[in-house]
Amino acid sequence: IAKEVAKLLEMKAQLGGDEGKHKFVLKTPKGTRDYSPKQMAIRERVFDAIITCFKRHGAEVIDTPVFELKETLTGKYGEDSKLIYDLKDQGGELLSLRYDLTVPFARYLAMNKITNIKRYHIAKVYRRDNPAMTRGRYREFYQCDFDIAGQFDPMIPDAECLKIVHEILSDLQLGDFLIKVNDRRILDGMFAVCGVPDSKFRTICSSVDKLDKMPWEEVRSEMVGEKGLSPEAADRIGDYVQLHGEHCGVEPLASFCQARQGGPAAEGCKNDHVGEPVSVGSVAGGGRYDGLVGMFDPKGRKVPCVGVSIGIERIFSILEQRVEASEEKIRTTETQVLVASAQKKLLEERLKLVAELWDAGIKAEVLYKKNPKLLNQLQYCEETGIPLVAIVGEQELKDGVIKLRVVATREEVNIRRESLVEEIRMRTSR
Amino acid sequence: IAKEVAKLLEMKAQLGGDEGKHKFVLKTPKGTRDYSPKQMAIRERVFDAIITCFKRHGAEVIDTPVFELKETLTGKYGEDSKLIYDLKDQGGELLSLRYDLTVPFARYLAMNKITNIKRYHIAKVYRRDNPAMTRGRYREFYQCDFDIAGQFDPMIPDAECLKIVHEILSDLQLGDFLIKVNDRRILDGMFAVCGVPDSKFRTICSSVDKLDKMPWEEVRSEMVGEKGLSPEAADRIGDYVQLHGEHCGVEPLASFCQARQGGPAAEGCKNDHVGEPVSVGSVAGGGRYDGLVGMFDPKGRKVPCVGVSIGIERIFSILEQRVEASEEKIRTTETQVLVASAQKKLLEERLKLVAELWDAGIKAEVLYKKNPKLLNQLQYCEETGIPLVAIVGEQELKDGVIKLRVVATREEVNIRRESLVEEIRMRTSR
Repeated sequence: IAKEVAKLLEMKAQLGGDEGKHKFVLKTPKGTRDYSPKQMAIRERVFDAIITCFKRHGAEVIDTPVFELKETLTGKYGEDSKLIYDLKDQGGELLSLRYDLTVPFARYLAMNKITNIKRYHIAKVYRRDNPAMTRGRYREFYQCDFDIAGQFDPMIPDAECLKIVHEILSDLQLGDFLIKVNDRRILDGMFAVCGVPDSKFRTICSSVDKLDKMPWEEVRSEMVGEKGLSPEAADRIGDYVQLHGEHCGVEPLASFCQARQGGPAAEGCKNDHVGEPVSVGSVAGGGRYDGLVGMFDPKGRKVPCVGVSIGIERIFSILEQRVEASEEKIRTTETQVLVASAQKKLLEERLKLVAELWDAGIKAEVLYKKNPKLLNQLQYCEETGIPLVAIVGEQELKDGVIKLRVVATREEVNIRRESLVEEIRMRTSR
Repeated sequence: IAKEVAKLLEMKAQLGGDEGKHKFVLKTPKGTRDYSPKQMAIRERVFDAIITCFKRHGAEVIDTPVFELKETLTGKYGEDSKLIYDLKDQGGELLSLRYDLTVPFARYLAMNKITNIKRYHIAKVYRRDNPAMTRGRYREFYQCDFDIAGQFDPMIPDAECLKIVHEILSDLQLGDFLIKVNDRRILDGMFAVCGVPDSKFRTICSSVDKLDKMPWEEVRSEMVGEKGLSPEAADRIGDYVQLHGEHCGVEPLASFCQARQGGPAAEGCKNDHVGEPVSVGSVAGGGRYDGLVGMFDPKGRKVPCVGVSIGIERIFSILEQRVEASEEKIRTTETQVLVASAQKKLLEERLKLVAELWDAGIKAEVLYKKNPKLLNQLQYCEETGIPLVAIVGEQELKDGVIKLRVVATREEVNIRRESLVEEIRMRTSR
């Protein structure tokens, strides 16, 4: 009976709306979040570092719609297509939210017949994945993509992509990171040297990929036992995969591809860059996708492309935790001066002064009270980090001066009204 | 028969995918567009002016997800709810794309129990409206919202919203604009003074609203004939509505509310600001929405709000046309210097130098060719507006110098390599 009552109560709760006490769930959709002003301040620091780098490398910027025709995305993501958000068919075109920025970029190139561009694009993408938000995995998340499209001499654009990842991860001071580069042709060459028959490349490759989960001995016995590789060939592979260090390590490959954010999975990964700050997982990925634009072009014309994608969510988590730990006080506004008064009936004078300051380009605020207490106005400055207070007073108005107070030192000086803008600029220009 | 053949051919075309010659439509969804690098350059100018203004007024910034729980939007937009984009039910929560930034803001305030904030939010919103893209009306478009939430003394935050619209429209140098302010209570007061009975306020108001489409005489006869107003009262209204000029004009009111971008229609519009550049239509709107947060709060606690929303699409259209007309050459990158070479086999030296420049924070590019012709390199600078070329040559490398060429004047000087960064900074700092 208790169970039935619970069930009925639940049903009632669901129907509650009709009775005017609808139980409304106050939340953001699963896997998404709001950014508070403090979080936005950190996010803007990260974007600033990334955009500065992209611009330093001469990239243009484009933007595309948040949704695409459903068929634009069809056939580009293999298995992962099930994670695409579709829009409801409300009449008209069938639409889906973008899953990455790479496919829209390729669509843009084909549509505008662009054969040559270096561009960046920073925008949100959408995946109906199982979110793990504490580890920085969301259903709505930012990608910061830098791509070079065009027919160029080999490896020069690819190298620039690696340089960009290095510059950004260094700039952000996230600590040590590792950039992994792979090329399936290196692996194929190694297999050939080790005496793996061509027909076994794929299956032996998938065994090598298991090295991040299994010890070498188990992988070896799978190669020899299940997959029929000669023990000699397996041992030669063993020599390679157990090497570590500069220019010679071989490590599981497919896993890097999985770490790629964006880029068509079917493309194969000639180049793949994965930065791995300690215990954080990958924060960037990339590679070539030489066939993608051709999939959109009516005549199948190819535009070779290479690019890299920085995922800011994990980077953001690291920086947020660091700010939390350091108790660094992050300002969420840039206000230079609060226009205040110590006496009553000066609202109009405060508004007149703050408008003067705004018109001169000074970042200024005023409390929205007719007669605020001076203490409250000073407290507001302390809380929000405003460094200066311009205090309007009757005597000062008569004398043509404004009292300028430095919040940190409590120093107060009278400044002639016509010099106030200059004085504020001077005192806040550091 | 021809008709039947045509029908079958059409069906075949639709099924075409199976035969490997699927007729793919290469386009963005209806009512949306890509932004090219040139358009982005203009867009960033507009955003820069708007954000600078919002920050000058001490606003914080927040961000919310592009979609909300469907029920968050339910009941907030009246008739216009049919324009909301719903996501397909793929299991899990029912979601809709945000229709404006006001409702998500109110949800954010209620969810986080914030009673006091001044924030801006710049993001795309979505409406399944009939697009008129040539006139700057899209289904995906930006809103730039500035709102002040909190219990304050009357009209002070409202006045700041007006000041902000004035500052932004002035900064953008769009030409003359008109800001209209209304308050239903003023109209109600005017009706009372004119002798309109309380019970007729609504219906007489809707007659006044027709003044933007009909001459006064017709409106008057509707009031008296259809709506039974006394001729004396109608004439007194006529005196008011035919006034123009400072502080005394009365104009159609409901139409301003319609021009509002965002804000719940049911709120009524105590304040409403509409800027109207000549022949462009409204580019901003706003008003109070004192009841909205309470609709989300479980205990119905109200947070009074006032805000303004700048619609950049029309502004963007104006500026884009102006740039087109002026033949102003807009740069889409900020590159300061191209690292070039006149001789072959200097790829590595070019890459070494460009990396030095990047690491010193110089915006630099290099062509992705092993042995590019000097002419092509100089042409690239002309096309993209790069002002300087750093030319690597064998003799210069031996001498420890780099040849710096000014693209505009063709002047060339040898600069010691260790002074190059400083020289480039000096020559491009204006």
